[in-house]
Amino acid sequence: MDIAILTPQRIVAVARAARERPDTDLLCFGESDQLGSAAAAAAAAAALTSGDARYSDVRGLSTLRDALAAMLTRLHACEVAEERIQVTASGMTAVNVALAALVRAGDRVVIHTPAWPNIGNAVVLRQADVDALSLDADPEGRFSLDLGRLADKLVGARALVLNSPNNPTGWTATLAELTTILALCRRHGVWLIADEVYNRLVYDGAESAPSLLDITDPADRVVVCNSFSKTYAMTGWRLGWMVVPAGARDAVSEIVEVTHGGVAPFLQAGAIAALRDEPFVERFRSYCAAGRQRTVDALKGLSGVRFRAPDGAFYAFFGVDGLQDSLALSLSLVRDHGVAVAPGSAFGLAGEGHLRLCFAQAPDRIERALGRLRRGLQAR
Amino acid sequence: MDIAILTPQRIVAVARAARERPDTDLLCFGESDQLGSAAAAAAAAAALTSGDARYSDVRGLSTLRDALAAMLTRLHACEVAEERIQVTASGMTAVNVALAALVRAGDRVVIHTPAWPNIGNAVVLRQADVDALSLDADPEGRFSLDLGRLADKLVGARALVLNSPNNPTGWTATLAELTTILALCRRHGVWLIADEVYNRLVYDGAESAPSLLDITDPADRVVVCNSFSKTYAMTGWRLGWMVVPAGARDAVSEIVEVTHGGVAPFLQAGAIAALRDEPFVERFRSYCAAGRQRTVDALKGLSGVRFRAPDGAFYAFFGVDGLQDSLALSLSLVRDHGVAVAPGSAFGLAGEGHLRLCFAQAPDRIERALGRLRRGLQAR
Repeated sequence: MDIAILTPQRIVAVARAARERPDTDLLCFGESDQLGSAAAAAAAAAALTSGDARYSDVRGLSTLRDALAAMLTRLHACEVAEERIQVTASGMTAVNVALAALVRAGDRVVIHTPAWPNIGNAVVLRQADVDALSLDADPEGRFSLDLGRLADKLVGARALVLNSPNNPTGWTATLAELTTILALCRRHGVWLIADEVYNRLVYDGAESAPSLLDITDPADRVVVCNSFSKTYAMTGWRLGWMVVPAGARDAVSEIVEVTHGGVAPFLQAGAIAALRDEPFVERFRSYCAAGRQRTVDALKGLSGVRFRAPDGAFYAFFGVDGLQDSLALSLSLVRDHGVAVAPGSAFGLAGEGHLRLCFAQAPDRIERALGRLRRGLQAR
Repeated sequence: MDIAILTPQRIVAVARAARERPDTDLLCFGESDQLGSAAAAAAAAAALTSGDARYSDVRGLSTLRDALAAMLTRLHACEVAEERIQVTASGMTAVNVALAALVRAGDRVVIHTPAWPNIGNAVVLRQADVDALSLDADPEGRFSLDLGRLADKLVGARALVLNSPNNPTGWTATLAELTTILALCRRHGVWLIADEVYNRLVYDGAESAPSLLDITDPADRVVVCNSFSKTYAMTGWRLGWMVVPAGARDAVSEIVEVTHGGVAPFLQAGAIAALRDEPFVERFRSYCAAGRQRTVDALKGLSGVRFRAPDGAFYAFFGVDGLQDSLALSLSLVRDHGVAVAPGSAFGLAGEGHLRLCFAQAPDRIERALGRLRRGLQAR
């Protein structure tokens, strides 16, 4: 069959191995064991059973667009007008719509790695060239982006996909770094696609990580993609949004119409309820913060492990001295110790030698899982 | 902004005009006024409120894949194995996934027109060339596909997108025609993407229109796309599926993972309930058949109108003598007569001179709407 072949998901290989050992603690996915807002589920179920299940505005319900605009304007330093908002069937769908709007075959798209593999694969599906820039890791396991090397790569590039807070590393750009990155993109005429799905999961007391929406003019060539999956723990809903430049929304809506035809109106009713449930966001952030602290405590002082608590997102991404095949280690951690983590190689060559776990889990689950992980790493 | 611009949806222009006249009868969309199966809505709502809202198998729930395989095997002449089924976020998403798997920039893709505009736009988004073959219309308004001209076009083409039963014309390929088309695609090594979303809406007493699934070997280069939108009146749900060649499903699943990450599991619970509600399909087909008969009666003998009852789908697509601007006529039908139909030009140049209406409406609504339409056409 002469059909497109993408790099298979290595996380799926680990998850399939875990099926053979049903007592495995699953920390390999980007998903909490918490359920999303009950108010959101109730609102969506009510809308569905009342018959709100017909074609609706492909841009998204106007009530949801207004609610998103109000939330983003409250959260960020610049006003975000409703006219710039497009609802999509997930954050990743938003990234794909942006790529479809902006990128052509043979264009060069800069990404940073380690990276969630779907980003690079989406660029490949656009028949564009992925130009990967590795984050730098210091000996303590802290990641950073070299802005000088980024500047070099942006010359002649069509787009940069920036993912901060970052999956898997937790690297989170400062506002100063975002300002420099935006200035570089402006200077070189590079479109900036910002994947900010983890922006509400930060651990410095702020409500949001620094965002392009704090510094972007409506005329900038910037598309900000986000999702209900992480902030509101609504992973399975497949619901996201994008903020596009002023005047671009109509063209983007046509792409949504052609690629997936918009989002179920009853799901959007649930999304409106989620946006009203700000206490859920606070509680979920605290829940993640507790899991993060437990992970720090468990990995601290573990011989041969390089790890620093991440600034954002809900992952521990840690280096293991001498590790050359993170997939093999991940598979043995499942089989021999009952704990599933994601192999660093799932996030590209730059991720090899690392493991990723999602710490957004209940105290007893994360404690047991971390105990299993410690034993597994010590048994190497 | 240097972003992709697709042809705007002319149907949307008519629908926006209709907002200015709230008593307008909306027959311009591909949607019934009937709600989908209540059992489906109840099952999805129950699954959602019980917490079945996390990441699930990107191929689709195994229970849904099994149910689809059983339904398709019952309905068609060949067995359809579960291993060939991928669940998608709509029929159109299935077409897009197929195009992403198969088509590269610069490839030539054959479609037939008049056509639902999303098909051609999806090919354009793949940066491929659309090669349109017009259906032939006889003086009585009956459409047909010239297989000789199709054969010429297939030489050197990458893919053919076949939509039978057809939106907007209602043209429905016979099994003999499908067999010839499949043979041509085999001979020329052309991928056949079959959009069969209207296959259950036929009016000859059959349960399904002739389908590629009646004649395709698992090794054929054929992808069959379908949806819950039309058969089960679940338009707003955004839920479809595709049948791919044996051995191709894993690669296709990776594309689904990257483009939209699969479908909400609670929606799939609703889909399983819909598949069990075969009486709904029967009732809905009868409902459409009644609207079709009313439309035949209303348009019969109307001077200057060329119309023949369609074999499939739920549209009347009729020619109007001397009509050169179907969009202008559609807008005036809204403003002056309170009835919204789709302009034929929305379906490409080959559709100009025609109007499309969806007859899957309640008796009183369709009678009133057809009365308005008659008056509007007579007033030209």
